[in-house]
Amino acid sequence: MAIVLGDNQYGKAETRLVRVDRSGEEHRIIDLNVTTTLAGDLARTHLTGDNTDVLPTDSQKNTVFAFAHDGVGEIEAFAVRLARHFVTTVPAVHRARVHIERYTWQRMSVGDEPAPHSFVRGSGTRTATVTCDGEHTTVVSGITDLVVLNSTGSEFWGYHKDRYTTLPETKDRILATAVDARWRHTGAGTADWAESHAEVVRHLLDAFATTHSLSLQQTLYAMGERVLRHRPEVAEIRLSLPNRHHFLVDLTPFDLDNPGEVFHAADRPYGLIEGTVLREDAPPAGLAWW
Amino acid sequence: MAIVLGDNQYGKAETRLVRVDRSGEEHRIIDLNVTTTLAGDLARTHLTGDNTDVLPTDSQKNTVFAFAHDGVGEIEAFAVRLARHFVTTVPAVHRARVHIERYTWQRMSVGDEPAPHSFVRGSGTRTATVTCDGEHTTVVSGITDLVVLNSTGSEFWGYHKDRYTTLPETKDRILATAVDARWRHTGAGTADWAESHAEVVRHLLDAFATTHSLSLQQTLYAMGERVLRHRPEVAEIRLSLPNRHHFLVDLTPFDLDNPGEVFHAADRPYGLIEGTVLREDAPPAGLAWW
Amino acid sequence: MAIVLGDNQYGKAETRLVRVDRSGEEHRIIDLNVTTTLAGDLARTHLTGDNTDVLPTDSQKNTVFAFAHDGVGEIEAFAVRLARHFVTTVPAVHRARVHIERYTWQRMSVGDEPAPHSFVRGSGTRTATVTCDGEHTTVVSGITDLVVLNSTGSEFWGYHKDRYTTLPETKDRILATAVDARWRHTGAGTADWAESHAEVVRHLLDAFATTHSLSLQQTLYAMGERVLRHRPEVAEIRLSLPNRHHFLVDLTPFDLDNPGEVFHAADRPYGLIEGTVLREDAPPAGLAWW
Amino acid sequence: MAIVLGDNQYGKAETRLVRVDRSGEEHRIIDLNVTTTLAGDLARTHLTGDNTDVLPTDSQKNTVFAFAHDGVGEIEAFAVRLARHFVTTVPAVHRARVHIERYTWQRMSVGDEPAPHSFVRGSGTRTATVTCDGEHTTVVSGITDLVVLNSTGSEFWGYHKDRYTTLPETKDRILATAVDARWRHTGAGTADWAESHAEVVRHLLDAFATTHSLSLQQTLYAMGERVLRHRPEVAEIRLSLPNRHHFLVDLTPFDLDNPGEVFHAADRPYGLIEGTVLREDAPPAGLAWW
Repeated sequence: MAIVLGDNQYGKAETRLVRVDRSGEEHRIIDLNVTTTLAGDLARTHLTGDNTDVLPTDSQKNTVFAFAHDGVGEIEAFAVRLARHFVTTVPAVHRARVHIERYTWQRMSVGDEPAPHSFVRGSGTRTATVTCDGEHTTVVSGITDLVVLNSTGSEFWGYHKDRYTTLPETKDRILATAVDARWRHTGAGTADWAESHAEVVRHLLDAFATTHSLSLQQTLYAMGERVLRHRPEVAEIRLSLPNRHHFLVDLTPFDLDNPGEVFHAADRPYGLIEGTVLREDAPPAGLAWW
Repeated sequence: MAIVLGDNQYGKAETRLVRVDRSGEEHRIIDLNVTTTLAGDLARTHLTGDNTDVLPTDSQKNTVFAFAHDGVGEIEAFAVRLARHFVTTVPAVHRARVHIERYTWQRMSVGDEPAPHSFVRGSGTRTATVTCDGEHTTVVSGITDLVVLNSTGSEFWGYHKDRYTTLPETKDRILATAVDARWRHTGAGTADWAESHAEVVRHLLDAFATTHSLSLQQTLYAMGERVLRHRPEVAEIRLSLPNRHHFLVDLTPFDLDNPGEVFHAADRPYGLIEGTVLREDAPPAGLAWW
Repeated sequence: MAIVLGDNQYGKAETRLVRVDRSGEEHRIIDLNVTTTLAGDLARTHLTGDNTDVLPTDSQKNTVFAFAHDGVGEIEAFAVRLARHFVTTVPAVHRARVHIERYTWQRMSVGDEPAPHSFVRGSGTRTATVTCDGEHTTVVSGITDLVVLNSTGSEFWGYHKDRYTTLPETKDRILATAVDARWRHTGAGTADWAESHAEVVRHLLDAFATTHSLSLQQTLYAMGERVLRHRPEVAEIRLSLPNRHHFLVDLTPFDLDNPGEVFHAADRPYGLIEGTVLREDAPPAGLAWW
Repeated sequence: MAIVLGDNQYGKAETRLVRVDRSGEEHRIIDLNVTTTLAGDLARTHLTGDNTDVLPTDSQKNTVFAFAHDGVGEIEAFAVRLARHFVTTVPAVHRARVHIERYTWQRMSVGDEPAPHSFVRGSGTRTATVTCDGEHTTVVSGITDLVVLNSTGSEFWGYHKDRYTTLPETKDRILATAVDARWRHTGAGTADWAESHAEVVRHLLDAFATTHSLSLQQTLYAMGERVLRHRPEVAEIRLSLPNRHHFLVDLTPFDLDNPGEVFHAADRPYGLIEGTVLREDAPPAGLAWW
């Protein structure tokens, strides 16, 4: 009845890197939250505390900052650089994953002129997760904290009813969610990560806005399907959509009607709809979602 | 050595109201977080549990929803309606304060056309705080969570140095903050709350972007002063500006220079600069900041 | 119509200091979050960016760490040391406030023996806020995040009803809150801050548990009154008590009764009850609550 | 190049159930956060919006409340009841997972007597995750938010050094983490969930306190290994341990030494150590970690 070490990994979470590009007349900024995770032959440190195989997480943080010296570029490319570096230079490391969140900043305008070095933070966070095992590199792009709402065009009826079902059916409700989407690229992905990301997000939003929804699942599938139909570089997309319930307030005690106008936005509990849409011939995911 | 009841108040915090305006071809939405606070002759409930003077906080919540039936309009006006209602209809209530946060939503576009009922949430939260004592009503407008950054144009030197001072002086640093601003209106305020708010925010951003900063205090004053200079309806403005430190990373151990390019965005501790800018002849604040 | 600088202050927020006392066989730890705030003749930095009067917030942070070298002791005493230091040594500073949060840690036991250097974090945060203007020093102690619940012994009825009141009266409900209490000490306070704090918290809890409550206001007053009655060193106490609503779930659609057993713990909105209890002959508060 | 639906699931997240047991002279309370997740034949709702197969998440919430009518008992048992119910009664559902967080409450004492219906919330959250596919049921117990600290007895040296390594080796540091542990039970688990949970947590804490640590990985393995050695009902344990860095503050600029006494508790970045310890002959995990 031996006791053994199973799967394990370690790394540095949430290194907050801000890179200023001062090369042009207008500064540009890149604001990142970088997490690196390494796996490999790490039994010694677990079993005896012999750290010969361990690259300190502090060194991983230093690496993130040092690599930014030469510029960051698109986060997918920066994550590939970092992941390959760890796998190829640290002897014990067999797999590296680099996860990056990029916060949104917009250039300010002053009197209709773009400000040369002033920015205001926007909403929505772009993400990239790159996994490398020395042989294969997989790239997953994503977006989080993209909060959207349809004030009509959403129904929910015809569902399975059991003895615990009290929800009235509706032909008109608010549909609101905070989109958390990640999509896996085919092979090496694309040459233009920025354009690809912007287009995927545009298709996600377009599908959300134009799908007359009979269920949040239907909207989820429509969003994923639309991305795959338009973006050949994407093999698979995973969506996690919390259903941010908006309950119609009963105003009849106050002799008032409420024709879909006054809602209470509830916190908890909330529905959570998760699904994957992929090409039938998508290449194997390998370590992409590891 | 009698023990007595001192200042007290009570209310309903964070009623989450979403109002859909379906009157036009395009829906509009208003997404609010409403807090009501009442004060007055409340000794009985404190001393004996006799609740004769207490309007339940549940009724306050109901009032928020019921008042939304007729439309919300600008949040300052909605807060005035609610505050005056409580003061004039609840016998024991002498003062009412209504604080509203309005979340930002933008209409989506689909293929360059505005979507009729689809929205995406933006950043920055507009606020209003109205206080009414039956006789006077004061209106404070505000903005929070407005995160801004200058990548240059900020210095910090010539400060007081004591034996605990180790900070090196700098002629070039990143200046970043999350603006929390509240401004008190003169008298009844303005006829156009929306235009006033947009213009105050524009002036805040313009002053942040165009002030060559020798201290965050200087930037704070410049922001407030600019608002007062351009907006006669504003009597006083209070700003709370956390200094979100961005530390230049020392890359010399890796034989790399770092000419203002690679920064670590720190969480804690952070500087916190708070200040008031007002007209010398501003009317008394009364209960505005109560 | 001159524009002028009004009230202002600045400081370093949330310096996270952990002090290990290794003097005995058993280590002791003190885990703090320290915020320092200074006010005084700061017009120059606001108006012109001349920082002659400004002690950098970085130096304030350094001071916190350096003062910890000689030991921290009780947080009220540590805050007094810091506040007096800033007022007496920084020429432009007329007022200093130091706010400290102390997190709770308990010593672990291993096989019924106290562990010499191992600790587990508990709940409840002790606070101290000291304000010093060079002449007077006021001390406010407190506790936050103390979450308590009575599963019965709470009623709510006989309240004012208006046209927006729908809440049914109840003779038995759950009463739950997260106590946020701050109490002002008379004069220089007490010789034994730790004992005083423990006793105040004990009286707060005792009063919460033993008061048959007709309103949360009544419970609030009883809590404050009990502290003042037993602790002569306390002149005034301020309590902020969110009413964490627990709604009885209607199980009748499932042919089940619910005699005060199954509740939904709601997030928002919530009631918020705030009140002060003080001695009639309490000395003036001065800057204590500034 | 067909596009297809891949893995998917849905459910109700974070139903906040509080159950009062009034059967004895002393009340007992159970405070839960319940998440239910269902998977099965859900293609129709995704592809066409036909909801025939969908049990609304609202009904899932109702089920949680209704099942609490008969008492909750240990959270593992409650989760089993719920998961089996969904799998056996909802035709389209093939797999159900129920995840429960139980918050810690302690009975208050008043004058050394236990209070009959008054409670104070403690720290540490107990969890259970049960997965059922109709045939097999797996039970995972856990604990989160268990924050622990050793003020000495931790070293870190002898690690792999590359060109980005600047971290000095140390023979004495603070080791602090927030334990997130989940352990999979063998077969149907144990007859006494409460005793099993308390003992596992005790062994985790004992191992943390008594392991002289050369790396957090070593501590992690020691914690898991100790649980497996003492608790035959546990087949496998997974630990996620953030390394909450405490940096020794350099006080030499102030002519002060710092022999392991004054530390800065940093927020980000942080190390993150994750690992699994299991029996060599552990039964297959099946859907346990799904």
